[in-house]
Amino acid sequence: MACGEFSLIARYFDRVRHSRRDVETGIGDDCALLNVPEKQTLAISVDTLVAGNHFLPDIDPADLAYKALAVNLSDLAAVGADPAWMTLALTLPDADEGWLQAFSDSLFEQLSYYDMQLIGGDTTRGPLSMTIGIHGYVPVGRAMKRDGAKPGDWIYVTGTPGDSAAGLAILQQRLAVKDREDAAYLRQRHLRPTPRLLHGQALRNLASSAIDISDGLISDLGHILHASGCGARVDLDLLPYSDAFRRHVEKEQGVRWALSGGEDYELCFTVPELNRGALDVAIGHLGVPVTCIGQMSADVDGLHFTRDGKPVTLDMKGYDHFAAH
Amino acid sequence: MACGEFSLIARYFDRVRHSRRDVETGIGDDCALLNVPEKQTLAISVDTLVAGNHFLPDIDPADLAYKALAVNLSDLAAVGADPAWMTLALTLPDADEGWLQAFSDSLFEQLSYYDMQLIGGDTTRGPLSMTIGIHGYVPVGRAMKRDGAKPGDWIYVTGTPGDSAAGLAILQQRLAVKDREDAAYLRQRHLRPTPRLLHGQALRNLASSAIDISDGLISDLGHILHASGCGARVDLDLLPYSDAFRRHVEKEQGVRWALSGGEDYELCFTVPELNRGALDVAIGHLGVPVTCIGQMSADVDGLHFTRDGKPVTLDMKGYDHFAAH
Repeated sequence: MACGEFSLIARYFDRVRHSRRDVETGIGDDCALLNVPEKQTLAISVDTLVAGNHFLPDIDPADLAYKALAVNLSDLAAVGADPAWMTLALTLPDADEGWLQAFSDSLFEQLSYYDMQLIGGDTTRGPLSMTIGIHGYVPVGRAMKRDGAKPGDWIYVTGTPGDSAAGLAILQQRLAVKDREDAAYLRQRHLRPTPRLLHGQALRNLASSAIDISDGLISDLGHILHASGCGARVDLDLLPYSDAFRRHVEKEQGVRWALSGGEDYELCFTVPELNRGALDVAIGHLGVPVTCIGQMSADVDGLHFTRDGKPVTLDMKGYDHFAAH
Repeated sequence: MACGEFSLIARYFDRVRHSRRDVETGIGDDCALLNVPEKQTLAISVDTLVAGNHFLPDIDPADLAYKALAVNLSDLAAVGADPAWMTLALTLPDADEGWLQAFSDSLFEQLSYYDMQLIGGDTTRGPLSMTIGIHGYVPVGRAMKRDGAKPGDWIYVTGTPGDSAAGLAILQQRLAVKDREDAAYLRQRHLRPTPRLLHGQALRNLASSAIDISDGLISDLGHILHASGCGARVDLDLLPYSDAFRRHVEKEQGVRWALSGGEDYELCFTVPELNRGALDVAIGHLGVPVTCIGQMSADVDGLHFTRDGKPVTLDMKGYDHFAAH
């Protein structure tokens, strides 16, 4: 990249709000140079967002920057890591200064909030898309993985999965919500999900497995089941709903969105019986509640559901299809 | 990314040829988990390649994978780092199995050669492009940077800059080379440049600054001058040419390509007088020669050229423009 217009673009991102002690060289040399603290394992996640596929091309650039970062931070939360650095490879059709100002302002506001530093990247011309790399630390041996769940472990979720799907439905005018506050709440849950970093960090000594809910609870809990080689039972009556969601979403639609709406960026995790007391203490002060929705089991294959104490069969294929919108 | 066709694609990249000891978790969880050895600084470089901008859409996928990796490795070479891990975010218009097989075979062959491991990434649908992240190590305090050159330091290049531009001209039928071997050599220098990793590692105790030549010698040596706050004199008579290049490229065109053709992925570096003897020893066994082409200077501003012992003025603006093709 040596063309004039695009070196201008690079300037929007060459501002150091936070100069972290672990960054020896950030943007501007051939490589970023970084010193990982002793006894910390590095956690890395990479995601690409393509316009028209992962977001609408006319999305507010401030919302786009927020969500692109949040989605990646959610992956760090799932392993229990503290965020540290970010790389941004941004491909743009042209240099729209208003767009760049709003996007980069929002990005740096978030980086500052999380004490993160942008350490490198690339700006190229082409159809709008971006690839974000997020780097964080987790104490050696403490990272949560998908494969640690054991039969008998309890299954939890943070927050209220389903809100994001309801918010998307409002944005796409598939759901009408007259109450302004409720509508705003649900839209924000879709546009500006909160990565559950504090929960992830609190859980890393307590949970036997964890994942973040990006494709929907069925799909992502399914990854834990598959990796851990267990089945599980989930009680549909225990699914946690927000007040706004409960007020405006019809019951069967609600179950569907909670299980497979996707883009919740809540955590789903498992906790051994022995750690349940410690969990209540560790999570109690974080504001956002966690809810036990079921239990891992050795005597069933895959995911089984109950309602009113009785087994129910969900058309899982339909749910999977739905998850892909 | 949960759509069926694209999870198939991911399988092409989910093969572990080398399982490095520093990789705790590679592909398949929310994050890759990595343990950086003690007393090593992490070096990270990120590059995006967009079809039609950085490569022709009909490029041989094996060549594309080779070059995408080589270009990033060249950034590690410039700081003197040993390669370790790679992330790949690949955006494809469709799932062409033949393309994927050739691309991934070539990629894994290179990863294996360099003892590297693919630790994560993303596969999305969209216009063909890719973002590669490369991670390597350099002993703490030993990374080469652009800002360390001092007046009096000697300026060197590895290999023979200009070959790549000549190879591109052959591919685009702007240069006719009848000799088959010479034509093949020059084409390969463009399609399959060798990242100078061994030189970079040998230089990290000897060079005062270094950069890799991606935009052309004038432009990249210019970055060293700017960062180090020195001027420099370069003797055009000392520019090293390959035999094939000398045989088929007209003299003035040759100077132009050597100085600003770009995509050489050779190293340009500076060495204090005191280290010149040690340099000859350290570099001697690496096969590819290094050539001294000039000297850093406090008494000139910017880059000055001589030929036959006399100052010459190059139309630098024209050279810069040319560099952008």
